[in-house]
Amino acid sequence: MTEDELIGLFGRCSNRGRWGADDELGTLNYITDEKRRAAAALVRTGRAVSIGRDMSTVADRVNTDPVRHRMLYDADPPVSALDSFELSTHGFALTHLDAITHVFWQGQAYNGQRAADLLSPAGLRSGSVYAQRNGIVTRGVLLDVAAVRGVPYLAPEDTVTAADLTAAEEHAGVRVESGDAVFVHIGLERREADQGTEDPAARAGLDADCLPWLHEREVAVYSGDCVERIPYPSKAVPLPLHQIGLVAMGLVLLDCPRLAELVAACEETGRPEFMLTVAPLRLHGATGSPVNPLCLF
Amino acid sequence: MTEDELIGLFGRCSNRGRWGADDELGTLNYITDEKRRAAAALVRTGRAVSIGRDMSTVADRVNTDPVRHRMLYDADPPVSALDSFELSTHGFALTHLDAITHVFWQGQAYNGQRAADLLSPAGLRSGSVYAQRNGIVTRGVLLDVAAVRGVPYLAPEDTVTAADLTAAEEHAGVRVESGDAVFVHIGLERREADQGTEDPAARAGLDADCLPWLHEREVAVYSGDCVERIPYPSKAVPLPLHQIGLVAMGLVLLDCPRLAELVAACEETGRPEFMLTVAPLRLHGATGSPVNPLCLF
Amino acid sequence: MTEDELIGLFGRCSNRGRWGADDELGTLNYITDEKRRAAAALVRTGRAVSIGRDMSTVADRVNTDPVRHRMLYDADPPVSALDSFELSTHGFALTHLDAITHVFWQGQAYNGQRAADLLSPAGLRSGSVYAQRNGIVTRGVLLDVAAVRGVPYLAPEDTVTAADLTAAEEHAGVRVESGDAVFVHIGLERREADQGTEDPAARAGLDADCLPWLHEREVAVYSGDCVERIPYPSKAVPLPLHQIGLVAMGLVLLDCPRLAELVAACEETGRPEFMLTVAPLRLHGATGSPVNPLCLF
Amino acid sequence: MTEDELIGLFGRCSNRGRWGADDELGTLNYITDEKRRAAAALVRTGRAVSIGRDMSTVADRVNTDPVRHRMLYDADPPVSALDSFELSTHGFALTHLDAITHVFWQGQAYNGQRAADLLSPAGLRSGSVYAQRNGIVTRGVLLDVAAVRGVPYLAPEDTVTAADLTAAEEHAGVRVESGDAVFVHIGLERREADQGTEDPAARAGLDADCLPWLHEREVAVYSGDCVERIPYPSKAVPLPLHQIGLVAMGLVLLDCPRLAELVAACEETGRPEFMLTVAPLRLHGATGSPVNPLCLF
Repeated sequence: MTEDELIGLFGRCSNRGRWGADDELGTLNYITDEKRRAAAALVRTGRAVSIGRDMSTVADRVNTDPVRHRMLYDADPPVSALDSFELSTHGFALTHLDAITHVFWQGQAYNGQRAADLLSPAGLRSGSVYAQRNGIVTRGVLLDVAAVRGVPYLAPEDTVTAADLTAAEEHAGVRVESGDAVFVHIGLERREADQGTEDPAARAGLDADCLPWLHEREVAVYSGDCVERIPYPSKAVPLPLHQIGLVAMGLVLLDCPRLAELVAACEETGRPEFMLTVAPLRLHGATGSPVNPLCLF
Repeated sequence: MTEDELIGLFGRCSNRGRWGADDELGTLNYITDEKRRAAAALVRTGRAVSIGRDMSTVADRVNTDPVRHRMLYDADPPVSALDSFELSTHGFALTHLDAITHVFWQGQAYNGQRAADLLSPAGLRSGSVYAQRNGIVTRGVLLDVAAVRGVPYLAPEDTVTAADLTAAEEHAGVRVESGDAVFVHIGLERREADQGTEDPAARAGLDADCLPWLHEREVAVYSGDCVERIPYPSKAVPLPLHQIGLVAMGLVLLDCPRLAELVAACEETGRPEFMLTVAPLRLHGATGSPVNPLCLF
Repeated sequence: MTEDELIGLFGRCSNRGRWGADDELGTLNYITDEKRRAAAALVRTGRAVSIGRDMSTVADRVNTDPVRHRMLYDADPPVSALDSFELSTHGFALTHLDAITHVFWQGQAYNGQRAADLLSPAGLRSGSVYAQRNGIVTRGVLLDVAAVRGVPYLAPEDTVTAADLTAAEEHAGVRVESGDAVFVHIGLERREADQGTEDPAARAGLDADCLPWLHEREVAVYSGDCVERIPYPSKAVPLPLHQIGLVAMGLVLLDCPRLAELVAACEETGRPEFMLTVAPLRLHGATGSPVNPLCLF
Repeated sequence: MTEDELIGLFGRCSNRGRWGADDELGTLNYITDEKRRAAAALVRTGRAVSIGRDMSTVADRVNTDPVRHRMLYDADPPVSALDSFELSTHGFALTHLDAITHVFWQGQAYNGQRAADLLSPAGLRSGSVYAQRNGIVTRGVLLDVAAVRGVPYLAPEDTVTAADLTAAEEHAGVRVESGDAVFVHIGLERREADQGTEDPAARAGLDADCLPWLHEREVAVYSGDCVERIPYPSKAVPLPLHQIGLVAMGLVLLDCPRLAELVAACEETGRPEFMLTVAPLRLHGATGSPVNPLCLF
């Protein structure tokens, strides 16, 4: 894809104005009551899989800004156990939802807003994760790109294309539809088990040609053990999933889930689809929220 | 109830050893795959109601330890919106799950453990909210005590008894069963709308005679817009729901939900039951977790 | 002063290049070993006065971002008392030193640097309070403007002019010299005792004509119970002491001291001068530091 | 020293009741106006040496709980640089003053108080570092034990005795007197430069026989690049300088200064004494305060 084609995706995938000038939900608009009802109807055994990562208080090269957990004094002798914690939502260590105005491109944010107008010391004035406060309940679909390619995991320099997504659908015998949450699996946990914590500066991930695919399918939530390929071969748009996905599409990103257990559950049940529930904390103006997504089979 | 009868509840309602010496789940053991499956089967319209309270950064007499939210510097001009937040989980302002070892009584914690053995500067060594990391999915049942009594809200000095719970069941035409999450409604939001933020030192709430009721019904999660009556007329056990509920029963408490919207949804659908999903953050050793519970109809 | 004259002060008071292109000390360059020696020689009785304000954990209209102090769990029984605290340095509640690159004007910072070049998520790349890590020891001089005007305190709408500073010098029988720290007193504590916590949006303070005065006298540190007049009657330069003082002059600002006890000590000793010691915390990249300045007589 | 002799030091070195039942200053009572005046009179050249350690945001085996520094969003474009920081005072990484009720022994604290009475979630009820809010100004005396022993640094298993302190005095030609702050130097920085960050679990330090020495000399502040020997060969009193020093004596401890530059200044001036200024932050109830002590020659 040329640089011009890449920049052209801002227009080609744009949802600007689609849900009104004041919209704060972005692609969550695709999720209807009926979609939620159908998601619940997928539950057959009641097996639940949490796909949140453990929140770690220990710094490493991925977890550069670890959660700070402090146990508090209560009384002597103690009558209860109390604590506090502090965290910064983004990065590669914490499973989290992005606010759709979390990322900007050339000073622009979702729905044609100016970054400078959105930002304030008190939080985002529009599109914060608070807009997602009613939670996300929808069908989740596993797109197992590693399985399709017949490898346990992709290498750091690999790129996932729209053709991979389509192949993964076919492999699973499922078609991604409006309002779905997709989970792209490249085997990161297995790779890290073999090779150690990955280098955040060299990450396998999606090619920008996946964006029209996600746009046309009306995907509500993108998730996976990868996001965009990093480093991305573009000066103008170095983070296409975040920059085009959030800014042009209002695509809700569920970053950094744990997928190995989910993949196992899909294999064991023989079904690549499940009921997904994600419930961000109700924090006004926040740029994202740590979450512990649950998948039900 | 005499002081001796109250103290006797520690034995009468005890789940010590019921699920093994190392159990960390307490009453969540009542929730089975089948229970989750049946909960999902309750979903008919797909309507979703979030019952988390907004996380407020402003101190008041209920919110004495508000969330601190800080917007972070990113770049000039900014390419993204970043923030951090800090919070202490308990109190009356934040919707949260209690770890079952959050509260002690006479140096004892759930399952016969000693508080001094559980506590450490790095967190709870057993029974922390991390034990609940797979989330809670079950049937939620509304017990609308205010409706049964025919009042918009109970007064601060009112007490909810086991008879009220039974009457609320009958009123709703539902029976609380093993693994359910119950939501007791006394109309707090309506009262606060009329009378201003309540005084945390004088709160309507449950009588200890509700504990055997909850124990016999094998309730998995207690929730409501009230907990125990405060101040409770006992020197020995001033917080019976927390002290007997957590310490003797391992009863998971979902504190401080917003109920008015849930009550309205139950009324509008004519059904007092719904699919409940609660997903605590995966923080090792934590004494609780802020949550945004979702109810599906 | 016209808007043009005001803007002209950026040039008229500029210290750009005066101490080299890499200078991070600004007006602290005026303080020499000899100046420190002479300051120590002012000590006659050994009386010490702390002029830091108490760090408050309670929000009010001045203390909008209070210090958060948390007592930590240690052991059961406790073998020590432990705690943590969190604070944001600036505002009107905390006695603090400003980094000389704390404030920008039209994208410019001290010594001709660009704000965008200085700022980073890890801190200020130049001119942070870490540059002041060797501390400030110099002569402090009280300029009691309230006393000169014969009032217990100035009103919120009053303005302190260069003529006031000169009159205060004459009143005290002292002349401000190179390397001094000046403390302008307008009686704020007394006013707040009479009228309640002041409105931060309407504060008595200095006229910009004080800046050439401070520049010509080679003042090293400006301090006082007022800074610039707020609101300042200028669209272009709404905070002249911070914008011209920091950006053009590199004038170190010691904000929000408590002065009443210092004024009393000066009156009782009959001397408007004293040995000042201020020691900022050694935090790389910080925009300022809370301090507890000490005055010795 | 036998275990009985060690425990006997609690009585032998006790200052209980010496300065009244409500005393919160402990050995700072030794510092008089005259002492401060004499300290200032030591200043001859005006050379200033900061002996605070840089506050590090990076975890290592000594700095297990690093300062968290966050740069805050201000505006777009930014008009100022803002930040916040969070820290826990104690440990071996931060230069700090201990509150005299920071440490307990068998449930007892300074001046016969009970730990359980002192502690509260809001802070220490007595003897907090707030009691030291007027700052410490006194004579500092360097006791260079490494120099006396003729080594660049002591080994981790070395112990400093009272005889070492006396020898260091004689070596320097100075006698420690009432109200002095002593700085014991064992060459830690040089050792760390050679051998890497020290193991906090094996630290050279003082023998308990130094305590009567410090008590008899009426030392106001103990400081140094070592505290007690760790591990200390006692079950009953594993931290004698903290437990006997704080609890029995009310001895103010200035932990973790940087000494190499101070030692160099003493050598260059040929004088082992200087004016010391330490100014803790004015935080009610705090267990200590980070400080940046200044030494003037």
